Amino acid sequence: MTLSSDTSTATSREVRQAGALGGPVVPSTSILRPLTQQEISVTGGFWGHQQELNGTVVIEHCLSWIERIGWLGNFDRAAAGTIGSDHAGIEFVDSEVYKLLEAMAWELGREPNPELEQSYRTVVARVAAAQEADGYLHTSFGRSGQPPRYSNLEFGHELYSFGHLLQAAVARLRTGHDDELPAVARRLADHVYREFGPDGRAAVCGHPEIEPALAEFSRATGDARYLELARLFVERRGTGTLAPIPFGAEYFQDDVPVRDATILRGHAVRALYLAAGALDVAVEDGDGELRDAVAEQWENTVARRTYITGGMGSHHLDEAFGADYELPSDRAYSETCAGIASVMLGWRLLLETGDEKYAELMERTLLNNILASPREDGRAFFYTNTLHQRVAGIEPDENEVSVRALSSLRAPWFEVSCCPTNVARTLASVDLYFATATDAGVQLHQYGEYALDVDLVSGARLRAHLTSGYPFDSAVTVTFDADTAGEIELGLRIPAWARLGATVTAGGSTTPATEPVHTVRGRFAAGDTVRLELPLEPRFTTAHPRVDAVRGQVAVERGPLVLAVESTDLPGGLDTEHVVLRTSVPPVGTERGARVSVRARRSALDEAEWPYSGGSAEGEREDEPLEVELVPYHSWGNRGPSTMRVWTPTTAD
Amino acid sequence: MTLSSDTSTATSREVRQAGALGGPVVPSTSILRPLTQQEISVTGGFWGHQQELNGTVVIEHCLSWIERIGWLGNFDRAAAGTIGSDHAGIEFVDSEVYKLLEAMAWELGREPNPELEQSYRTVVARVAAAQEADGYLHTSFGRSGQPPRYSNLEFGHELYSFGHLLQAAVARLRTGHDDELPAVARRLADHVYREFGPDGRAAVCGHPEIEPALAEFSRATGDARYLELARLFVERRGTGTLAPIPFGAEYFQDDVPVRDATILRGHAVRALYLAAGALDVAVEDGDGELRDAVAEQWENTVARRTYITGGMGSHHLDEAFGADYELPSDRAYSETCAGIASVMLGWRLLLETGDEKYAELMERTLLNNILASPREDGRAFFYTNTLHQRVAGIEPDENEVSVRALSSLRAPWFEVSCCPTNVARTLASVDLYFATATDAGVQLHQYGEYALDVDLVSGARLRAHLTSGYPFDSAVTVTFDADTAGEIELGLRIPAWARLGATVTAGGSTTPATEPVHTVRGRFAAGDTVRLELPLEPRFTTAHPRVDAVRGQVAVERGPLVLAVESTDLPGGLDTEHVVLRTSVPPVGTERGARVSVRARRSALDEAEWPYSGGSAEGEREDEPLEVELVPYHSWGNRGPSTMRVWTPTTAD
Repeated sequence: MTLSSDTSTATSREVRQAGALGGPVVPSTSILRPLTQQEISVTGGFWGHQQELNGTVVIEHCLSWIERIGWLGNFDRAAAGTIGSDHAGIEFVDSEVYKLLEAMAWELGREPNPELEQSYRTVVARVAAAQEADGYLHTSFGRSGQPPRYSNLEFGHELYSFGHLLQAAVARLRTGHDDELPAVARRLADHVYREFGPDGRAAVCGHPEIEPALAEFSRATGDARYLELARLFVERRGTGTLAPIPFGAEYFQDDVPVRDATILRGHAVRALYLAAGALDVAVEDGDGELRDAVAEQWENTVARRTYITGGMGSHHLDEAFGADYELPSDRAYSETCAGIASVMLGWRLLLETGDEKYAELMERTLLNNILASPREDGRAFFYTNTLHQRVAGIEPDENEVSVRALSSLRAPWFEVSCCPTNVARTLASVDLYFATATDAGVQLHQYGEYALDVDLVSGARLRAHLTSGYPFDSAVTVTFDADTAGEIELGLRIPAWARLGATVTAGGSTTPATEPVHTVRGRFAAGDTVRLELPLEPRFTTAHPRVDAVRGQVAVERGPLVLAVESTDLPGGLDTEHVVLRTSVPPVGTERGARVSVRARRSALDEAEWPYSGGSAEGEREDEPLEVELVPYHSWGNRGPSTMRVWTPTTAD
Repeated sequence: MTLSSDTSTATSREVRQAGALGGPVVPSTSILRPLTQQEISVTGGFWGHQQELNGTVVIEHCLSWIERIGWLGNFDRAAAGTIGSDHAGIEFVDSEVYKLLEAMAWELGREPNPELEQSYRTVVARVAAAQEADGYLHTSFGRSGQPPRYSNLEFGHELYSFGHLLQAAVARLRTGHDDELPAVARRLADHVYREFGPDGRAAVCGHPEIEPALAEFSRATGDARYLELARLFVERRGTGTLAPIPFGAEYFQDDVPVRDATILRGHAVRALYLAAGALDVAVEDGDGELRDAVAEQWENTVARRTYITGGMGSHHLDEAFGADYELPSDRAYSETCAGIASVMLGWRLLLETGDEKYAELMERTLLNNILASPREDGRAFFYTNTLHQRVAGIEPDENEVSVRALSSLRAPWFEVSCCPTNVARTLASVDLYFATATDAGVQLHQYGEYALDVDLVSGARLRAHLTSGYPFDSAVTVTFDADTAGEIELGLRIPAWARLGATVTAGGSTTPATEPVHTVRGRFAAGDTVRLELPLEPRFTTAHPRVDAVRGQVAVERGPLVLAVESTDLPGGLDTEHVVLRTSVPPVGTERGARVSVRARRSALDEAEWPYSGGSAEGEREDEPLEVELVPYHSWGNRGPSTMRVWTPTTAD
């Protein structure tokens, strides 16, 4: 290889045409260009396992549930004209079918699968059959025995459900098929344009989602009306078109216009989907004010309203963000879908700005919030993702629909089951978030085992593959599979936790990587390697002093993984509530987690009638130190009922 | 006076007949005998002000709201046969009318008031007119357009509403009137006995309340069937007669039979009302097992699931107790009604056992949880009672019904408005919780300004009055107004916080009072005094180490009062979120609260993008110490929007 000494990165904006192949987000212009499934594919390793599980188990699991409990049957009955007030499930279960169709589309794009293709087409046909002559398509509204169309914009979720249909259609288009679902989506989007467009009613949906969906559908079809409609929905938000509700207008972000807000608030998924859609509109229109507003909201939300896992949302009652620094571990809501929405927003901001801080939070959220949802076998899920399980809780029934119960065990399906299908569509397309391209080269934002095949504008090309046991192993090796036919830039994201120890070895020399992006520039031949070493020594982490909930406690992180102490790993019936962590003993990395030193602590107060007194640590007794193995947070709760803590009290010794 | 050296207390059980005058609870047998309104009455001071405000403002405020928004009108329309699905308010608003009637009955018993009596009789007549021929009386069920009777036992609150009618009737009977409401109540109770008695359906109400009400109604009327019915309802609970609900059977205590449970769980008000009723049943039947089960539940709940204010309930979502030690300050639910229910339970346990620990929690709960609800002017209320207000929040509209919003200001009325009327009935009868009698004397459990006129079984009598500025002043003086005509015992509760400094002066000598009860025995003449001094120096309090939410924080208490720092009292725009308390400087008592030393602390992390790092206090800056005045928690939020903390982080210096 021939390395160049110039390591500045190109930042010219690319302009792209509608209708191209691509991933979930294809802005018409951005600093970084997202890759297509033809350019990037996972080949194995950590993410290979996740995508394999998703493709072979999760999608099938979701399909069997929506069939079994009548959510697919709703469409058949709607087509037959026999559905009424006996609609199965809550009013927005159509959206689960659409999210699953999106997952199937990405999965089919990743790898042809005749059986899955057949299954996909059958579901699409059943959905299409329920579409009405004017394009409207919803199984809960408008028929005899049902509420009229658009009679409950606050909670009806009609446009929300449409949004997921449009996103499913976008996935189908971007994987090279302009067939039945995109046609259904066009008719539906045209209907919505007539109803809510410039000549329609000035209203919005209580649950944002159609905003990013319309923007993407416009990008994917080239039809500017859909973008115009997205913009109308974004601009109307915060002007009080929705009726007052007990939670207040903040719940659905109708309290303040998007461009005037400085932080995300209210229902977390709603807030994040809206921000994603607002950014899409801002990017397409070159609306710098709106873009900067969304970026500021992200900034403040990440600084003050985000859990260490990347999870968002502190309230169970309204599934909402709390006040600044209101981040209780035991009542963390941290809905899986909010994590997914955060990744959607982060990806858009990363493409638009090229700033790796967005990729950094995406990694944290993917590994520690979203991946915590599916059980190891892919057949059960967490809806909320607590950071502190005080009691093992009930065991969900594997054959029954659960509520979002506070159990230490995942449930197979939920009454409101937004998370499993959202996980499915995210895992099926997750590789598309790993890397980007510019005119001059390729940027690696996430690490794992995947192959790249990118033709650059310069005429150079990058055919390479990554091998790595990351996030458990520290080495990431990029091996070129062909001559680059010119000079290219290879950008490597260096996570904040790695910047004091990361090294990059290329062309026989090893250099420290201390910046958010380490760029290797040169001409590479087949067989050349670039090797990144990310220090994975576990570390203690403390929180901002205003996070009252975890004062006097530490978390342990290892590379990008947040670790947890689980009762399963404690000896002799000791529970996680009586363990204090000795920060005087540095944590030691293990294969997947870390080993730390703890003491069991019992207080004389444990026997007290009243838990408040003047004595600080009276009668406190600490046992001899014990070594305990911490596991990655995302893998907890896979070995039977347990208690768990991410944050553990510390002891002076 | 002639003092006796024997200070042991009498513990013989008294037996009482049904139908007597009395207060809210008159067990047929108990260690301590509750007093009647003829025996105790508040004469002024702290509680005099509260009862005055209740009698002149709160009751009238409640009456005007239930009239204005149609909750009273429901009865008129039910009587006229014109009510249907257009019933005003949620399905259990009848109960607000009944709680208000109970408040009015106690208030009328306390002090004749022709205008109030007229108003009371008018409301009773409107209620009575709605009673159906078979005794059933509910404005939300059973008519055309309404759900059938008892079709939704899980959430319909029918029997719950009946319970409050029975309690209102008990108040009328115990204040000497066997008139229209008791007659209505008899017909209703007979109906319930037919429907749910030994020959009726084996079911319970999703919201316990009828259990203690039936037990008291049996005690007040002498009809044993009502007690039998109460027992059936108590024993059926926990046997799964209620249908499954998303919150789980624990929500309405249908998870475990009452006698098998070891701690209170689920919806806090439900759990506490049920425990009160179970204790009533246990006492009447001499069921020691059931009594001990309830006592153990109280013990464990107070030790692990109670806020420093006495507040109970940690969850907003299901208004429920959390897990052990799950006591977040900022998301404290601490519903006013749960505090009232806790006082109801504590009073029953105190009468049954004579153990002053129950009186101690009652005082804490009355002063710091229940009294926090009404605004100083009696025209607005807190529904929930947070211990940490992070942001000032919205200002409730004085003319509109509020939801239980997270504001720093109290609201005039709520959609679910259980708390204002519950406060009204509690304040109207609160003096009846202050003292008890035994054969040998009188026990003072709560202090203030009140008069006693008690004839003892021995033939002795106690006519005396208390003068005191307590809880703000330390001295309580008992002055005898007549010769006791024999030897009597005067029991003085010595709160736990006072036992290192309390003194009792009687007969010219002063002795330390170091036990939970200090008994003065002797023969007293008119003009004799017994003077109790309770040290009111403010003190720092810390929490059990398992209360994660307040680790590294202290509260300040002064006597029985929990204090709070409110932004209103901080100089120069400083907010409560940036204050750290210097525990190296002892707090100094002020007229009503305390003065403490704080520093303003700002962290370099305040500017950080990500609030979790390895640095513990990097870049932290503390300003010069400031003196700040803390106010009684119950009085916060009376001076405009503010932020507030009960628990404040501490600083090394």
